[in-house]
Amino acid sequence: MRHLLNPLDFSVEEIDQLLDLASDIEANPAKYAHVCDGKKIATLFYEPSTRTRLSFEAAMLNLGGRVLGFASADSSSASKGESVADTIRVISCFADICAMRHPKEGAPMVASLHSSIPVINAGDGGHQHPTQTLTDLMTIRSLKGRLNNLTVGLCGDLKFGRTVHSLINALSRYTGIRFVLISPPELRVPDYIIEDTLNAKGIEYKEVENLDEAMPELDILYMTRVQRERFFNEEDYIRMKDCYILDKKKMELARDDMFVLHPLPRVNEISVEVDNDPRAAYFKQVQYGVYVRMALIMTLLEVEKPC
Amino acid sequence: MRHLLNPLDFSVEEIDQLLDLASDIEANPAKYAHVCDGKKIATLFYEPSTRTRLSFEAAMLNLGGRVLGFASADSSSASKGESVADTIRVISCFADICAMRHPKEGAPMVASLHSSIPVINAGDGGHQHPTQTLTDLMTIRSLKGRLNNLTVGLCGDLKFGRTVHSLINALSRYTGIRFVLISPPELRVPDYIIEDTLNAKGIEYKEVENLDEAMPELDILYMTRVQRERFFNEEDYIRMKDCYILDKKKMELARDDMFVLHPLPRVNEISVEVDNDPRAAYFKQVQYGVYVRMALIMTLLEVEKPC
Amino acid sequence: MRHLLNPLDFSVEEIDQLLDLASDIEANPAKYAHVCDGKKIATLFYEPSTRTRLSFEAAMLNLGGRVLGFASADSSSASKGESVADTIRVISCFADICAMRHPKEGAPMVASLHSSIPVINAGDGGHQHPTQTLTDLMTIRSLKGRLNNLTVGLCGDLKFGRTVHSLINALSRYTGIRFVLISPPELRVPDYIIEDTLNAKGIEYKEVENLDEAMPELDILYMTRVQRERFFNEEDYIRMKDCYILDKKKMELARDDMFVLHPLPRVNEISVEVDNDPRAAYFKQVQYGVYVRMALIMTLLEVEKPC
Repeated sequence: MRHLLNPLDFSVEEIDQLLDLASDIEANPAKYAHVCDGKKIATLFYEPSTRTRLSFEAAMLNLGGRVLGFASADSSSASKGESVADTIRVISCFADICAMRHPKEGAPMVASLHSSIPVINAGDGGHQHPTQTLTDLMTIRSLKGRLNNLTVGLCGDLKFGRTVHSLINALSRYTGIRFVLISPPELRVPDYIIEDTLNAKGIEYKEVENLDEAMPELDILYMTRVQRERFFNEEDYIRMKDCYILDKKKMELARDDMFVLHPLPRVNEISVEVDNDPRAAYFKQVQYGVYVRMALIMTLLEVEKPC
Repeated sequence: MRHLLNPLDFSVEEIDQLLDLASDIEANPAKYAHVCDGKKIATLFYEPSTRTRLSFEAAMLNLGGRVLGFASADSSSASKGESVADTIRVISCFADICAMRHPKEGAPMVASLHSSIPVINAGDGGHQHPTQTLTDLMTIRSLKGRLNNLTVGLCGDLKFGRTVHSLINALSRYTGIRFVLISPPELRVPDYIIEDTLNAKGIEYKEVENLDEAMPELDILYMTRVQRERFFNEEDYIRMKDCYILDKKKMELARDDMFVLHPLPRVNEISVEVDNDPRAAYFKQVQYGVYVRMALIMTLLEVEKPC
Repeated sequence: MRHLLNPLDFSVEEIDQLLDLASDIEANPAKYAHVCDGKKIATLFYEPSTRTRLSFEAAMLNLGGRVLGFASADSSSASKGESVADTIRVISCFADICAMRHPKEGAPMVASLHSSIPVINAGDGGHQHPTQTLTDLMTIRSLKGRLNNLTVGLCGDLKFGRTVHSLINALSRYTGIRFVLISPPELRVPDYIIEDTLNAKGIEYKEVENLDEAMPELDILYMTRVQRERFFNEEDYIRMKDCYILDKKKMELARDDMFVLHPLPRVNEISVEVDNDPRAAYFKQVQYGVYVRMALIMTLLEVEKPC
C-alpha cells in the first residue's frame, strides 16, 4: 500500500504516468464516472481549507465514489485528546482512502504508519502540500506541453511559501529548467533550498527583486500570496504585500505563450484586470487539480484504468 | 445559462411550468430518481441555515445527484480574504450548479456574474430568498388549486420579513389577489412595497392590527417569526413578539378550507396545539420546498423531463 | 414504525436477529451494497462526535444510501430557538431515517414522538448510547462466539460511564454472566444499577479495586476513559485518571482468549504497547460498529434481506 506524503514520493516516471492518466480523465471523463463505485474517501481536515477539501470531494464523486469526513477540528475527536494514530485506525474502518489536512507538520506521516488505508497529505502546516505540486505540474505540462526546458519565474513570498519550495524541488528533477526567483530580500528562498536543491543539482537560477524586468524571459510565472499569518509583525506584512502585484501593464511585458499560475486564494497580488487575459491560468489550474486528484485516488486505490 | 437570484426572475408562465414539474415530481418521484446522475450541487452557506441547506441537498440526492459544500463561513476560504467572484470561479470547477447563502445582500448576484455554473440565491441578508417564495407558491397552489382569486393574510413582522415582501411581489402578478396585512404599527409593510407594488398594480389590500378580526375572510394565513436579530432593542422585541400568536381559539374563527403557512423556524408565534389541525400546512410546506427545489435544479441544469 | 432510543428497546431475540444480520453483512458485504439505494439518513449531531457520526455515515453509504445532516449545533436551526419536535418534523421531509446526538437527555425520545421517520438515539447526554451497546454485543459475540457464560470485567469510570451501565443492562439478559467491577471507590457502579439490575436479577458480580488481581479470571475486559468533563474538580480527575492503565505487564496476567474492548476515544488508559496484542479488540470493535449500524438501518427501514 502506498501513501502520498511528500511531493517527491513519486518518481519522475510515476509522475509521468499519473499525469498521463489525469490527461486521459480530462479528455474522457465519462469513461471514469464509475471506476470508484462503492469506494469512500475520508476528508480529515483538522484545519479548514475549502478549496482543497472540495477538490478531493469533487474528484472522488467524479469517479463514482462517496465522501465522509470533517471540515474542521472542532467537530472531531481531536478535542477529546485522541491521537492521530488512533483516529486513523478508526477511519480505516470507515473509508478506503483518506486525505488529511493538519496544522502539525508530520501528522499525515504519523497517520500513514498506523493506517490500513492510503493516506494523502492534503497539507501539514508549513511543510508539504503534495497535491498542490501535482496540480502545478499538471497545469504546466498541459499548457506548455512539457516539463523540461522551461524558464519558471516564482514571485512573492519565496521564504514561507511551501508551494514554491515544493515546486522547485519537483521541477528540479527535469532537464533544462531555469528559475527566476523574484522577491523582496526579506522573503528570499531559504538557503537550504538554494544549497541542497539548486546548487547541489546544478540548476540554473537567479534571484531578482524586480518583477517587470523578469517578465520577458518567462515561460511560467508562478505568483504567490503573501500570507499575513506567516509574518511576525503587521508592519512588515503591510510593507511587503503590495510590492509584487501583477497587473495588465506588467502582462504586456510578457510573452504571448507565457502562463500565470497561482495556488489560490488570491488576495490582491494579481489584479482582477488580468483575469480575462488568455495567459491567466490560475482558475484552469483548479480544474487540473481535480483531474490530478482523480488520477491520484485511482492510483493509490490501485483501480484499473478502464479501456 | 440561467440563475435564480430574485423571486421575479421567472415569468408567471415559467413559474407555472416549474410548479407543474414540481407537482409531477411529487406524484411520480421514482421517475426522477436518476435524472441528475453524475451531477453535483455545491451548497455554499456563508451563514448557517440547516433547513434551507438540507432541503437543497435532499432535492439533489432525490434526483440522483451528489452534494459538496460548506455549512458556515468559518470553514471556507472567505476567512482568507478571497472574494466571492474568485470563490465561484473555483466552485465552477467542482460542481454543476450551486446554492449560495450569504449575509451580504447581492453576493449571489456578484457570484452569478463570474460563474460558469447556475447560481441559486439561497438567501442574501435581508434581501431575497427566492426558493422560499417558490415553496410558498407551490404550497398555495397545491392546497388551494390556484394562485389567483385568493384572500391572503400576512401576519407578524411585515417590516423586516423578506419572505413576506417576496410573497407580496410574487402573488401580485396573479389576478384577484387580496392582501390582509396584519401587524402592529411598528412592523407594517414598508412604504415602497405599498407604493411600488400594491398601489402601482392596483392590488386590493388592507392593513389591520387585529388577527382575530381578520381570520374569517382568509384563504391563506401566512405567519412569520418576529426575529430578535431584526430589532434594535430588546424591549421592543419582547413587547411585540407575543402579540400575534396563533392558537386553537383563533383557528376556530377561520374557514375550513383556510391554510396556515409559515417559513419556519417557528418559535412561539404558532401554538403547538394548532399543529394537528388539518389546516396547519407549515410542515407540508417543507415537503413542497423539496419538490420545488428538485424542479428548479432540473430547470436550471436543463435536464430533460423523463417520460 | 420503530425507533431505537434505549439499548433495551430490542428483545434478546431481536438482538440475536440483528447480530445475525450484521454477521452476514460482515461475511458478504457486496450482497448489501445496494439494499438502501435511494434512501437517505440524516445525521443530526447537536454535539460533535466524529466517530459515531462517521460510523453511521459509512454504514449508510455501504448500503448504497446517501447522507445529509449537520456535525454541530452551531450550524443548525437550534440556535434560532427551534424545538426538537419541529426540527424532526422538518427532517422527516428530507430523509428516510435519522441518527440524533444531543446534549440533553431525552431529546431523541421527544423527537421520536413527532417523527414520521425512524429515530436512532446516537447518544443523549450521559443517558443512553444504544448503538454503542449493540457494537459491544456484536464484538463480544463475534470474538467469543457467545453472549452467555462469560466473566466480564468493567474497568475505570463505572459511575459516570453510560456505555458501562448500558452494557451491564444488556448482558444481564443473558445466562451465566458474571461481572467483575473494577474501579476506585469514588467511581463505583451506582447503587440503582446494583439494586435494580444485578441484585434484582440475581446476577453474580464483585466489586474490586485492583485491576491486576482481576485479570486472570476475565473473558472480556471492558476499559473506559475517565472523562474530564464528568468530574467536578480537576484534582479528583488527575488523581483518578491514571489509576487503571492497562499495559503489557497486566496483559501477561490475562488468558490467551481474553479480549480487551474500549468504546474509544482512548486517552492513556490503555498503553499503546498493548495495541499489537492479538487480544486488543478495540479497533476491531469500530469495524463491528459499522456492521451493526448497517444491520440496524436495514431493520428500522424494514429493508428486505437480499438472498
